[in-house]
Amino acid sequence: MEKVCVAVLGLGTVGQGVVRVLNNSAGQWAKKCGADIEIKRALERSKERAAESGLPEGVVTDDWNQIINDTDIKIVIEVLGGIEPARTFIIEALKHGKSVVTANKDVLAEYGEELFAASEASGADLYFEASVGGGIPIINVLKQSLAANNILRIMGIVNGTTNYILTRMTRAGLSFEAALQEAKELGYAEANPTNDIEGFDAARKIAILASIGFHNRVRFKDVHVEGITKITAQDIAHAADLGYAVKLLAIAAEDNQEVEVRVHPALVPLDHPLANVNDVFNAIFVQGDAVGETMFYGRGAGRMPTASSIAGDVIEIVKNLQRDCLGRISCTCYEHKKLKDFGDIVSKYYLRLNVVDRPGVLAGIAGVFGDHGVSLASVIQNTADRKENAELVVITHKVRERDIRDALKVIGEMPTTVGINNLIRVEGS
Amino acid sequence: MEKVCVAVLGLGTVGQGVVRVLNNSAGQWAKKCGADIEIKRALERSKERAAESGLPEGVVTDDWNQIINDTDIKIVIEVLGGIEPARTFIIEALKHGKSVVTANKDVLAEYGEELFAASEASGADLYFEASVGGGIPIINVLKQSLAANNILRIMGIVNGTTNYILTRMTRAGLSFEAALQEAKELGYAEANPTNDIEGFDAARKIAILASIGFHNRVRFKDVHVEGITKITAQDIAHAADLGYAVKLLAIAAEDNQEVEVRVHPALVPLDHPLANVNDVFNAIFVQGDAVGETMFYGRGAGRMPTASSIAGDVIEIVKNLQRDCLGRISCTCYEHKKLKDFGDIVSKYYLRLNVVDRPGVLAGIAGVFGDHGVSLASVIQNTADRKENAELVVITHKVRERDIRDALKVIGEMPTTVGINNLIRVEGS
Repeated sequence: MEKVCVAVLGLGTVGQGVVRVLNNSAGQWAKKCGADIEIKRALERSKERAAESGLPEGVVTDDWNQIINDTDIKIVIEVLGGIEPARTFIIEALKHGKSVVTANKDVLAEYGEELFAASEASGADLYFEASVGGGIPIINVLKQSLAANNILRIMGIVNGTTNYILTRMTRAGLSFEAALQEAKELGYAEANPTNDIEGFDAARKIAILASIGFHNRVRFKDVHVEGITKITAQDIAHAADLGYAVKLLAIAAEDNQEVEVRVHPALVPLDHPLANVNDVFNAIFVQGDAVGETMFYGRGAGRMPTASSIAGDVIEIVKNLQRDCLGRISCTCYEHKKLKDFGDIVSKYYLRLNVVDRPGVLAGIAGVFGDHGVSLASVIQNTADRKENAELVVITHKVRERDIRDALKVIGEMPTTVGINNLIRVEGS
Repeated sequence: MEKVCVAVLGLGTVGQGVVRVLNNSAGQWAKKCGADIEIKRALERSKERAAESGLPEGVVTDDWNQIINDTDIKIVIEVLGGIEPARTFIIEALKHGKSVVTANKDVLAEYGEELFAASEASGADLYFEASVGGGIPIINVLKQSLAANNILRIMGIVNGTTNYILTRMTRAGLSFEAALQEAKELGYAEANPTNDIEGFDAARKIAILASIGFHNRVRFKDVHVEGITKITAQDIAHAADLGYAVKLLAIAAEDNQEVEVRVHPALVPLDHPLANVNDVFNAIFVQGDAVGETMFYGRGAGRMPTASSIAGDVIEIVKNLQRDCLGRISCTCYEHKKLKDFGDIVSKYYLRLNVVDRPGVLAGIAGVFGDHGVSLASVIQNTADRKENAELVVITHKVRERDIRDALKVIGEMPTTVGINNLIRVEGS
């Protein structure tokens, strides 16, 4: 095989990056993977995007049939995003024996099982390194280099938008709203930022990583999700005083054959490798029983980093085509593990309480925590800028989610409690 | 194929880790890679080590012939270390069509070409993820996930011993000698620490990474090497004041088809991801034209992390055996690039000069720098604890190595110069 023909579905930001990477290195592919790579077709309705891509006129089409029915095309690169028509195109391509490279976390996190079934049925490859962490190699790392490990924990900063917002809140003392506005102006946040700031994007990514790490299918709907909209500059300042950075973490862990998967803001100790991951950078921290602690850092989004991962996958598939070993790396969800009830997760917690500033109030609250088995690691009382109320900043020892929730229900109903402002988990310590 | 038989050469620290990882997950391998993995033989002369490994009595042998002539054995895991007999065993195994997994940076950095020739001749696989960065996936990452990139720069902390020493000098203000002594007591440094502290270990590793990253064979002898023995607590304190950490960096970069490969201490800005890599941890920072900046962090040595990488390679080869695609990933040194003359490298420099404390001295020195095209970014003069002499701490802008060396030759001969205490490159800014 001297040449492998590919099709690119979608010539948006990432699609144009893929075209650039594949065409920039034209002539090098034979050395890198044994065959030249030719973009034979691209699916795109917008004439503007087609022109921006620089592809020759005859290559771009708006007719899927010209791709799915072209037996020359061995690899379909899906960078449309969103569920439909991406999902249908991926499944049809796989059914036709075409291998697929996709960056589509939405489809993978909701329809992964269906996709892999189609891939296994026809023997075509399904690669998706770019779906999590943009340019950061993490899917292949988990499937290959770390494959001998029992993975204990995956903890990632996998959303650049929210990491940018939290970094700006930390460094410039901005409010959440101001930092979000800034992110929008810089193109780091979309006009409708819900998917990012509510943690949905991160949840899809951790569902994918958890499925690989724990060999057990985890879907988007299985992930407990909390976004960053309730984080205040005040929380971040308190966290800094206490030696922590505030990050939106996507966490998957296994304990006793039970898997927990969650996305929420967290306090991370400043000496933890994730604490220094700032701006739009992403990083994924992986703990394995043999390898110990590892971390993978880089740009989690953007045209060229995402194209880097996609082109890396294309090279792998071309090698598989050359060596007639498609299907060499397949679905790794061969276990059926229980998902942990969210009330059973164990964490340390940061908590900010507004209470009436009166003798005995702290004793009452501490008593309620004690009754629920919540042990306190530190309590700081601030009264400076308040007249009648005091602010308590509490960090707990490790405690069950259910227990602290129960304690807070009681505390919330106490007449001396003015408000429970925020409850943020403390991870990585 | 229901079972793949392997042999482990050497039951030292790493060999015992390999046995543990392969045996701990017995029963899982079929799910992970399609076949069970059985340690059929281990080569070890020491009865004590054989007993420590926990392998059944009949498995351990001191006779290489029992391994090389056993056609059941498909994979040889070489963890003897050192050049001979490791090199001979690897070559013989490959010539017999047995695939090899090795952690042996010494052999790879000096005889890589010979090894790959043997691998290509017989079609057997040669994998070596554990040879650089211990448990950190970096070889496979460069060969696969980042394969679409033109790599611009690789910059790593790849020696745990020296990173531990520099971390302790930084945090506790220890002298080099005291930190080395501590590292020895903790088992982080060998009785003869030359290989680590003189940078030879790091040089072998960067030769391997450079060969992969730039597709061009780089040997140990091609690497410019400086160790950390001349670094003083004073340099580290000055660096900290200026906003830098001192690290032993292994650097490979390509510029205009010329490759430079070097190991030396360097000042790294505190906000650079490598600056926060401490103790025995390793990290490799990779810059690619598409992916941008990435970093891979973890334990660079030790029994279980190294075994993690080795077992990951074994799984890959078992998959290749199952799919009849040995040789799928082969030598990637298909280019012939020039090695840059060391005088031509460009860097910023930190420099500490002792001079006579007299009017006009600084002007004279600045003049010499200017004559040689060395432009200064900052100059700090300390006189506090000295009577007749002043200490100048200088940071330059980017300058050619040759030019600053020439300038220092002139400055060293000036009657007002008492001593040139240290010249340390500044990287990553």
